[in-house]
Amino acid sequence: MTRDIPEISLQRLPIYLNYLKSLPEGDKYISSGAIAAALGMGEVLVRKDLAYTSSSGRPKVGYVRTELIAAIEDYLGCNKKKNAILVGVGGLGSALLSYGGFAKYGIDIVEAFDSDPEKIGTSIGGKMISVDSEVASAVQKYGAVLAILAVPASAAQQVCDGLVGSGIKGILNFAPVQLKSPESVVVRNIDVAASLAILASLL
Amino acid sequence: MTRDIPEISLQRLPIYLNYLKSLPEGDKYISSGAIAAALGMGEVLVRKDLAYTSSSGRPKVGYVRTELIAAIEDYLGCNKKKNAILVGVGGLGSALLSYGGFAKYGIDIVEAFDSDPEKIGTSIGGKMISVDSEVASAVQKYGAVLAILAVPASAAQQVCDGLVGSGIKGILNFAPVQLKSPESVVVRNIDVAASLAILASLL
Repeated sequence: MTRDIPEISLQRLPIYLNYLKSLPEGDKYISSGAIAAALGMGEVLVRKDLAYTSSSGRPKVGYVRTELIAAIEDYLGCNKKKNAILVGVGGLGSALLSYGGFAKYGIDIVEAFDSDPEKIGTSIGGKMISVDSEVASAVQKYGAVLAILAVPASAAQQVCDGLVGSGIKGILNFAPVQLKSPESVVVRNIDVAASLAILASLL
Repeated sequence: MTRDIPEISLQRLPIYLNYLKSLPEGDKYISSGAIAAALGMGEVLVRKDLAYTSSSGRPKVGYVRTELIAAIEDYLGCNKKKNAILVGVGGLGSALLSYGGFAKYGIDIVEAFDSDPEKIGTSIGGKMISVDSEVASAVQKYGAVLAILAVPASAAQQVCDGLVGSGIKGILNFAPVQLKSPESVVVRNIDVAASLAILASLL
């Protein structure tokens, strides 16, 4: 999928989506001004972001809330089921396996992997934990394109290489290390400690 | 602390720091070109980012690695101890309490809070879990300025209001909801499911 939306606008779409879904069922219309005010953003920015989806506001009344939700969901691919795997069932990996928030984006974590013999064969949140040497066959079996990487920093590059080799196209990396990967693979990082440190340095 | 560094540059400082620390002890010098190549960034960008810290490369040899590490750590305030509290000891909150990665940034999660009577009085990762009505007194007692918010979306705004009222200045919010807070409080969001959905839509 190649689209001309800037990634920064793309990153705001889930924010609009969560907000629109949080409104009472009875709210039929919503204006860009009301969205902007509720989220503390500029109205022009909101209108521009939403214009990337197929949604269009109507003069005076604004957007039909359910249509706008559907348009954003469609744009984000929420209705297209995508399989993901998770590697590294430590504290964070376990928490993510139990987390129900992926489903609303059409993402299913189908299987998890770890190297710890005590974890292998058990399951968390209904997800089986298998030995990490089986990653490649699972990626094939499920047609998984996404991987969550929650292993220690020291193991992350090696696991990343294995994921790339198995055909994974997108990696969400929680290890505090910059991964090397081919350009065809999209890697995004979440470093919780660094995020908190950056936040602290803004105070 | 008000500085003229763009937040996007600030966000890259921990990446440089992690990389520099991962190099062998014996590596005395490192050039901006070598850093750029290792991290897949442009050399001009690297040099510009690092110039915000007090570090300066030397002609031909580059930066003294230990000096550059110290300069970045100083800029990020790693040597200034900061107390943080965590609210919401579910799966994610528990994982963050056990996570040792905050210490290198000088951040100590001093206490955690939850509303579940079964959790109160227990501890995770050596951090005591207290009833959430005690947040304000703990913030005072520890002089905490940072809070990690890991409660369900439905409770997030109310907890946020309490944190703001208690004197917290920076909130790292994991609930998939846009929080309303005074301008004097810095809020940053991490929405793991949305991040994975955005990643998927880039493929």
